[in-house]
Parts: sequence; structure tokens; C-alpha cells
Amino acid sequence: MSKRSYPLSKVYGLLEPGPVVLVTTRRKGRPNIMTMSWHTMMEFEPPLIGCVISGRNASFDALRTTKECAINIPTQDLAKQVVGVGNCSGETVDKFARFGLTAVEASEVKAPLIAECYANLECRVADTRLVNRYNFFVLEVVRAWVDTAVKNPQTLHHRGNGVFAIAGETIRLRSAMK
Amino acid sequence: MSKRSYPLSKVYGLLEPGPVVLVTTRRKGRPNIMTMSWHTMMEFEPPLIGCVISGRNASFDALRTTKECAINIPTQDLAKQVVGVGNCSGETVDKFARFGLTAVEASEVKAPLIAECYANLECRVADTRLVNRYNFFVLEVVRAWVDTAVKNPQTLHHRGNGVFAIAGETIRLRSAMK
Repeated sequence: MSKRSYPLSKVYGLLEPGPVVLVTTRRKGRPNIMTMSWHTMMEFEPPLIGCVISGRNASFDALRTTKECAINIPTQDLAKQVVGVGNCSGETVDKFARFGLTAVEASEVKAPLIAECYANLECRVADTRLVNRYNFFVLEVVRAWVDTAVKNPQTLHHRGNGVFAIAGETIRLRSAMK
Repeated sequence: MSKRSYPLSKVYGLLEPGPVVLVTTRRKGRPNIMTMSWHTMMEFEPPLIGCVISGRNASFDALRTTKECAINIPTQDLAKQVVGVGNCSGETVDKFARFGLTAVEASEVKAPLIAECYANLECRVADTRLVNRYNFFVLEVVRAWVDTAVKNPQTLHHRGNGVFAIAGETIRLRSAMK
């Protein structure tokens, strides 16, 4: 993997724009992937992420049991895989095999990283207080990897029903906001 | 306002892509605006939104006290206002006046709507259990308005430090995902 370790203090800038992500888990040795758009940053450092994972997903049980996952950020070249992963179940399908994705070992968690994604965040569950009511998990990012050759990642932003806006032109304004 | 009432069942598609939004509140008659990127959908219907509002913002106290706000979604023509609003405090500045934004009365809440934004969501606070720990509010959208003439909104997606990706090309893939 041609990725570099990425400072945890900069992780928020990867997720704050709201890209679709692929969440990977590994339970009883078996890797799985799900597509997710319902996430938000909750703290800069250590980076905390809040996300909703439906109880209908096999990933819900895997995350609740193992308390570990990885968040992998795809770009538009992976759009078909992103939709495909979202439309089948890890109960019956090996999604890495079906969608030609490469599982790479993480450094801090057992969940695999997806090599084809430009960024990978290794996460541990930090708070489960809103899981019963909203399926809402708070994750802490413990290690991050980014392909620094990707300057303006053309991330996918889901508008619903398979319609995605692709991150396009970048603008830069003077700001004191972090 | 040339906007139409928008079905609550479709609201998720406005926020799921992760745009920067402007949150409006009104406390003791005084309107305020803040810029926010840390939000996520939490439920389709009624639409629930989770969001982090720092205790350093005047809007935090306004939201906690009045339990009402509006989420206004700007497009790239408002980029300067979005950054300007984020770089000053409602304690000392009337942000509507300073940034030339038009306050419109909402139908269900006292918080004003921003006419210049292409979509406006009237919200009530639904859950405050994670406010003390993470400044995390759960909001319920009780009414939504959209300028339906805007087909592919060029929303702003914050990468940090005043750098924004603009929502560009739209792609449409066959998907069973909502």
C-alpha cells in the first residue's frame, strides 16, 4: 500500500465534507463491508466520529461484538462497487471477492482496510449510549492512512436512491475556522 | 420566498451529501446564524438530524434554551457569507445585517429562515442526552422548504481551514439503497 500514516489531528478534514464511506469489519475471521453516509465528526483530537449503522446490516452485529471497524473513503472510480456493496448482504456474499476489492491488514484493529480507497481510518467504538435508540455509534480513530498523491479527491456524496454528487472544483477562502 | 413545502420523507437527501449549513436561532427576539459542518442524518421519518454545536458559539445557548432552530443550506454563491458567518460572533454582530442575508419567518418555529439559501429545515430539539459530553444535539425536522428550481445544488463541502469542495457532476446508478 502506497499510503502514509496521516496525523490524527487532520482526520476531520477527510470526513467533514460528508463523503460516502465503506465500513469494514471482521468477525470470527470473516471480513465484511458496508456502504455508509450517515456519519459526522464529533471531536478534532482524538478524532471522534458519530455514525448510524442500521440493525439490518450484518455490520451492526460485527461492530457491536468486536468494537472495531475501519472507515475507508472511496473516490468516484469506485462508484459501482460502492453501490454494489450497499445492495447485497455480507451474510451470504464475500464482498471483497465479489467486488474485486483488496483487503489489507490494519495496524491497530482486526478489521481489514480496503486498498483501493484513498484513505483508511482504523477505529474503535468509544461510546454506545445511543446505539439502542438510534443505532448510533461513537468511534475513535486510532490510526489513519492516506494516499497523499490524491490532492483533490473526487469523493461521492449521496443524494439518495443511487444519485451521487461528485466533489468537484475546490475553492479556498480566508478563514479562522478550523 | 419562492419555495415550496417539501415532503419530510425526502429531507434526508438534502443533508446526507454532507453540505455546510447555516444554523439559525432566535433568542429573546434576537436572530443569530452559525456555520456548521458536523451533522448527520439519524432517521428517515420523522427526519432526525444529529449535530455538534460547540459551547463556544452563542448558538449553543440559544438552541439549548429555546429548543428550536432552522438549518439552511447554502450554495456556492454564498461561500463568502458562509465563511464570514463562521468568523464572527453573534454576541457582538447582527449577522443578517452584516452579511446582507434576509430573515424570513418560519411556520413552526421562532428561528428565522435564510431566504438566500435554497433549502430551509425547521427543527426542534428531540434529544439532549449527548449534549453535556459531546455538544451533540438530536433535532427533528418539523417542516421543510426547498426552491425546486435548483436541480443540482452546488453545495459547499468543507475540508477544513476555509477550503471547500463544490458539489459538481451528478451520477446516477441503479440502487436499492434509499
